[in-house]
Amino acid sequence: MADISSKLEIGVTTGPIRGSRKIHVPAQGNPALRVAMREIHLEPSSGEPPVRVYDTSGPYTDEQASIDISAGLPALRRPWQLARGDVEEYEPREVKPEDNGQLGPDRSGGVPPFPTALRKPLRARPGMNLSQMHYARQGIVTPEMEYVAERENLGRARLAAYNRSGESFGASIPDYVTPEFVRDEVARGRAIIPSNVNHPEAEPMAIGRNFLVKVNANIGNSAVASDVASEVDKMVWAIRWGADTVMDLSTGRNIHDTREWIIRNSPVPIGTVPIYQALEKVGGIAEDLTWEIFADTLIEQAEQGVDYFTIHAGVRLPFVPLAAKRMTGIVSRGGSIMAKWCLAHHKESFLYERFDEITEIMKAYDVAYSLGDGLRPGSIYDANDEAQFAELYTLGELTKRAWAQDVQVMIEGPGHVPMHKIRENMEKQLEACGEAPFYTLGPLTTDIAPGYDHITSGIGAAQIGWYGTAMLCYVTPKEHLGLPDRDDVKVGVVTYKLAAHAADLAKGHPAAQVRDDALSKARFEFRWRDQFNLSLDPDTAEQYHDQTLPAEGAKSAHFCSMCGPKFCSMKISQEVRDFAATQNQPSSRFLAAEEAEAGMREMSRVFKDTGSELYMGAGGREHD
Amino acid sequence: MADISSKLEIGVTTGPIRGSRKIHVPAQGNPALRVAMREIHLEPSSGEPPVRVYDTSGPYTDEQASIDISAGLPALRRPWQLARGDVEEYEPREVKPEDNGQLGPDRSGGVPPFPTALRKPLRARPGMNLSQMHYARQGIVTPEMEYVAERENLGRARLAAYNRSGESFGASIPDYVTPEFVRDEVARGRAIIPSNVNHPEAEPMAIGRNFLVKVNANIGNSAVASDVASEVDKMVWAIRWGADTVMDLSTGRNIHDTREWIIRNSPVPIGTVPIYQALEKVGGIAEDLTWEIFADTLIEQAEQGVDYFTIHAGVRLPFVPLAAKRMTGIVSRGGSIMAKWCLAHHKESFLYERFDEITEIMKAYDVAYSLGDGLRPGSIYDANDEAQFAELYTLGELTKRAWAQDVQVMIEGPGHVPMHKIRENMEKQLEACGEAPFYTLGPLTTDIAPGYDHITSGIGAAQIGWYGTAMLCYVTPKEHLGLPDRDDVKVGVVTYKLAAHAADLAKGHPAAQVRDDALSKARFEFRWRDQFNLSLDPDTAEQYHDQTLPAEGAKSAHFCSMCGPKFCSMKISQEVRDFAATQNQPSSRFLAAEEAEAGMREMSRVFKDTGSELYMGAGGREHD
Repeated sequence: MADISSKLEIGVTTGPIRGSRKIHVPAQGNPALRVAMREIHLEPSSGEPPVRVYDTSGPYTDEQASIDISAGLPALRRPWQLARGDVEEYEPREVKPEDNGQLGPDRSGGVPPFPTALRKPLRARPGMNLSQMHYARQGIVTPEMEYVAERENLGRARLAAYNRSGESFGASIPDYVTPEFVRDEVARGRAIIPSNVNHPEAEPMAIGRNFLVKVNANIGNSAVASDVASEVDKMVWAIRWGADTVMDLSTGRNIHDTREWIIRNSPVPIGTVPIYQALEKVGGIAEDLTWEIFADTLIEQAEQGVDYFTIHAGVRLPFVPLAAKRMTGIVSRGGSIMAKWCLAHHKESFLYERFDEITEIMKAYDVAYSLGDGLRPGSIYDANDEAQFAELYTLGELTKRAWAQDVQVMIEGPGHVPMHKIRENMEKQLEACGEAPFYTLGPLTTDIAPGYDHITSGIGAAQIGWYGTAMLCYVTPKEHLGLPDRDDVKVGVVTYKLAAHAADLAKGHPAAQVRDDALSKARFEFRWRDQFNLSLDPDTAEQYHDQTLPAEGAKSAHFCSMCGPKFCSMKISQEVRDFAATQNQPSSRFLAAEEAEAGMREMSRVFKDTGSELYMGAGGREHD
Repeated sequence: MADISSKLEIGVTTGPIRGSRKIHVPAQGNPALRVAMREIHLEPSSGEPPVRVYDTSGPYTDEQASIDISAGLPALRRPWQLARGDVEEYEPREVKPEDNGQLGPDRSGGVPPFPTALRKPLRARPGMNLSQMHYARQGIVTPEMEYVAERENLGRARLAAYNRSGESFGASIPDYVTPEFVRDEVARGRAIIPSNVNHPEAEPMAIGRNFLVKVNANIGNSAVASDVASEVDKMVWAIRWGADTVMDLSTGRNIHDTREWIIRNSPVPIGTVPIYQALEKVGGIAEDLTWEIFADTLIEQAEQGVDYFTIHAGVRLPFVPLAAKRMTGIVSRGGSIMAKWCLAHHKESFLYERFDEITEIMKAYDVAYSLGDGLRPGSIYDANDEAQFAELYTLGELTKRAWAQDVQVMIEGPGHVPMHKIRENMEKQLEACGEAPFYTLGPLTTDIAPGYDHITSGIGAAQIGWYGTAMLCYVTPKEHLGLPDRDDVKVGVVTYKLAAHAADLAKGHPAAQVRDDALSKARFEFRWRDQFNLSLDPDTAEQYHDQTLPAEGAKSAHFCSMCGPKFCSMKISQEVRDFAATQNQPSSRFLAAEEAEAGMREMSRVFKDTGSELYMGAGGREHD
């Protein structure tokens, strides 16, 4: 165990993201509550204040924090939970060998249990409901909601400087997010705050169309590859670059203990697909799945602190044959497992029939539903077909049943969809699911670019995020080909962060443009380091720059390798600006002057006096 | 010179793209005309015919062709040109030292001239007009138009199998492209066929909203980096991966000879920005530019065979001060040079005032206009502003003036534009420029991801391509940071090919989905090699696959590293399909059965008889 924990400590990346530092901002109205953000510092010459950005990286980027993977992160939310007086500590379900894939009781060859995993879990006292939606509907503003409000308000202070522009397709994005706004969004089901009572290490965050668009990163081993150390490392790596939640999709052996290591060290909500582990417990034979085994698995994972469960309860027996017409059939693992079960027994899905019992479990821990789209299209050919929408409307029906018990819900979406069919997915989801947050995978806008599916899907993700999707599930370059490694995880996360940000800009999120403007201003003023530090991936930006101009001087010089020394555009713009200032007159004057031959020689002389020599080129131009 | 040419031969990549071979298809109605395409062969087990794809790679991927960089490519179009009887051979303008950046006459330290560069150029006989638009308006269907018709008809043979779907935003995409349709599109200015009479090596291609969306790749050295060998190599590399045209944006020394090596070896149209070379000729002092020097440069490049010129004639004196309000001013090199000139002399741009004289030169060689957007926005903040649209409407005015002389025109577009402002660009361009082809750079949908601007712009490119842009100018990962190397060029081209293809799918191009369907079917049937070969980048796809499952067996096994051996989705779909078949009844029957407890045990038995064991997982699923 010492062995593995040390391996883990070695594997995890810590330290601040370059050019910035972790800060903790007191929440409006509740100064005791300190909200984590990141502050990017600009060159003094700029005269610009630091730029605050949303930060998902947790203590790992905080120089003040000491990281011990074997101890896990501090239990930030525990005091808030206990103060509510509706929880009880109890003896956890005993961890069984099959939880880790039929390992012997000695766990030989397995992952050592997390050292402090023996602590007692919490759950709702009898008759109580721990879900944030339940509190919200009772008019209670929780610390989680206050935290979210402050966290979402990044840059709002500068709002005065902006004329909001954007097309939000019916969203209701406020100028300023208040705790009461958060409560109202959660109460009506338009946003969720995934927050399992047994994952107190998580920093509260919201998923909803009126908040910043979020990004999920998938990790997880399979019987074929990966190990626990590298999965914990991938989690920390993914949140460093901006993953808002992480799904552990592990299959194979050691699932239970791998998940424990991940959750105890995760400052972001963790999601899972419980049917994967349930299938392992029955040796991979879908027909042998039972409600009892599944329910026991839900308890097991709820006690560990999983914040949301993907449940494929919309894959109903009558819909299964609809997949027979398809080019690529059923491409969801969970969906195919349930389809198999339904056919084998020729019975309706137990996930559908026992849905209200599942909801009882969810509310005892505040696990949120992520209703799975088991029948999503796996190819352009299958997009928006009968099977897909039959399931979607069933998910809408289930959403209302979950809401009837005040349990939080989001809805998973496709898949492979050509651009002209993306909007219909969003519109039908809003209609069928009463604005419950949409959580989409891509969609991939073409099938012909394996190896580049982070891009084929990033195109669709930016669009559906603009239309109203609340969280985008990333796709890595390895999609369809293999398991993502560390580099793939980073590329996937950064690609989806830029897609989510493009969506925030297009929706007219009031704070979104602050960072674009700061970076563009730095570019115009040749502040290379500020350009790097303000970007989503400063390391890659500087590395690319240095491949052509390694010299330190090149980072301060008014010079770049694209134009070369003789060409300039930024500098001329500055001259134009100065000239217009000296003339202090509108362009109409120029129009007049254009006709007035008389004035020309004089104005030409004036311009030359202002100093018109051509400087060296800047970095702000595209080719041509 | 032997030295450099051998260097060039070493640098160039030849040989077929894996899994496919170059074919030459006789054109409908003119069998003598053989149109280059690429045929991807599928595993015999598939029982599928080869998939024909559009091919831009020229003889370099043809096993039958022998490549000699020092000899250049065969003059495919020369017989067609001579047959028209409207050209004359003449003594070319003498190459001056300043053409290569003030090198001494001995060219010491320079690039050796292309060996056969001494051949005589062609131009229109007095009073004649060589432009494809001129022929088209006289009702003449040229071999170039016949070639384009056949080339664009890829996959149309299978059209019967498709119900066309898509939203084309007012485009008029025919079910089948005829030579007459091509003639009509060129005659009305809605498409261009760039084809300088002195670039007979080029294979005819069309740029227009009713044809497949095209992609341009920029290459070119600057005083800071790059050399002629690597630029020719980049050109061949770019077209191998699908670049439809290439722009040589070289600055610094040896411009003339570098361009000659590129053109003589290019099977795709070559574009340039002549003002760059003109500026070199006056030592980089914008104010010293004159009409005479610029006109002489146009002749020089027209004689070499440049197929389209970017001319920033829309940067008028009265518009320059409008850029003063901007965050990032003028980000176009050509635009800033002309702005500088206008301010220094306080005169209207000579490009604008002498536009009709420029057009006289264009029609003598059939050089097409690419009217440059010198005032495009360089940041999200500046998108869709007064300066940008003032220029766009001027480009519309110039389009009509060029058309008055039957000269081909396309219009360059932005730039940096958030998603919600992209559509306005397309609509205003269609309105202002009478449907002349739009040729856009990106647009980049956010400023905050340097190092990933091929993706921030790929998102915008797919959208504006869908709305109607005819050609997308690629952006590489090095944008804003440095000059693209070989790898950057490939990533940029593949990213833009998938964006262009996503646009073709969304527009409802009748042949576009053939390749997606073939690849998805291969995926469903576990034909891994076919998946790789059908993809835009087979090498990367296989390499990614092999990182997790290197074994040869894994390429035939019904197995992949993402699900691992116990999980499956494709296989279950097959079982569902078989079962539905054995039952031979609609899903309504299932709905009934759901209520009918009685039938269930029997149907369950039937399913088990059809063999219901779970196979190993497939490669067609997304995570979850």
